Amino acid sequence: MSAPSPRSRAQRQADTRERLDGDVDLWVASASPEGEPYLVPLSFDWDGQAVLIATAAASPTGRNLIATRKARLGLGLTRDVSMIDGDVEVLAIDALAKETGDRFAARSGFDPREYGSSYNWFRITPRRVQAWREENELRGREIMRDGRWTA
Amino acid sequence: MSAPSPRSRAQRQADTRERLDGDVDLWVASASPEGEPYLVPLSFDWDGQAVLIATAAASPTGRNLIATRKARLGLGLTRDVSMIDGDVEVLAIDALAKETGDRFAARSGFDPREYGSSYNWFRITPRRVQAWREENELRGREIMRDGRWTA
Repeated sequence: MSAPSPRSRAQRQADTRERLDGDVDLWVASASPEGEPYLVPLSFDWDGQAVLIATAAASPTGRNLIATRKARLGLGLTRDVSMIDGDVEVLAIDALAKETGDRFAARSGFDPREYGSSYNWFRITPRRVQAWREENELRGREIMRDGRWTA
Repeated sequence: MSAPSPRSRAQRQADTRERLDGDVDLWVASASPEGEPYLVPLSFDWDGQAVLIATAAASPTGRNLIATRKARLGLGLTRDVSMIDGDVEVLAIDALAKETGDRFAARSGFDPREYGSSYNWFRITPRRVQAWREENELRGREIMRDGRWTA
């Protein structure tokens, strides 16, 4: 079975934006300051600039993101991925505009504000994005660098 | 949309074993000793005891696993996951029996032995396994503890 031709950079960027706009869940990888990896699927929203997630401050993901401010996100399927390395901003659960929280709740079907201050919002701004399907797309997989979509 | 009833522990174990026996790819989360997370989908094999993957020793995943000997694996889809925390054994690419490498190549469609000593095998023995689909399965998600399937 031979893979289809590699997608152009523009196509990979369009496909990644479509997932950011429309998907409900992604994989969130984080690490403890001592190098213990963690991974969990979570619901998210995307406002065109950053990925928004919410989890309990005391959960492994919450603790890791608070401590290191680094996340790597996996969007899509194992043979059609967009990988996002991002910087993490930690926000109190009452810190966002009401509309932002409402939008997250509508998209994800889960309203973290119901859990009060035990939960945080985590706003993850992409620094680097890669997108590939099969091995023939490993070349040219970097579609954002230093926070900018590559031209 | 209400989720179906939570699966029994035995059913979750059976579903997880089915994925271990039959799936081709999984998500591999690792971390640098300084707490930088990494995540990538990789092909795998399963011999009933451990997950076998292969990657370049100089890749981020290779470097992290060699340094920390810890991985967290995600099998399945974001709303039907089996999460595996495992201990990592690092093996030279010529260290496995020929049949073991052949089996990996047949299952994954990729033979890391062709890359020679720049690649390593990583044998990941599950220590803890969790399985859940929706929120109503978070309770009872631990199906292996201390390396043993829970009874």
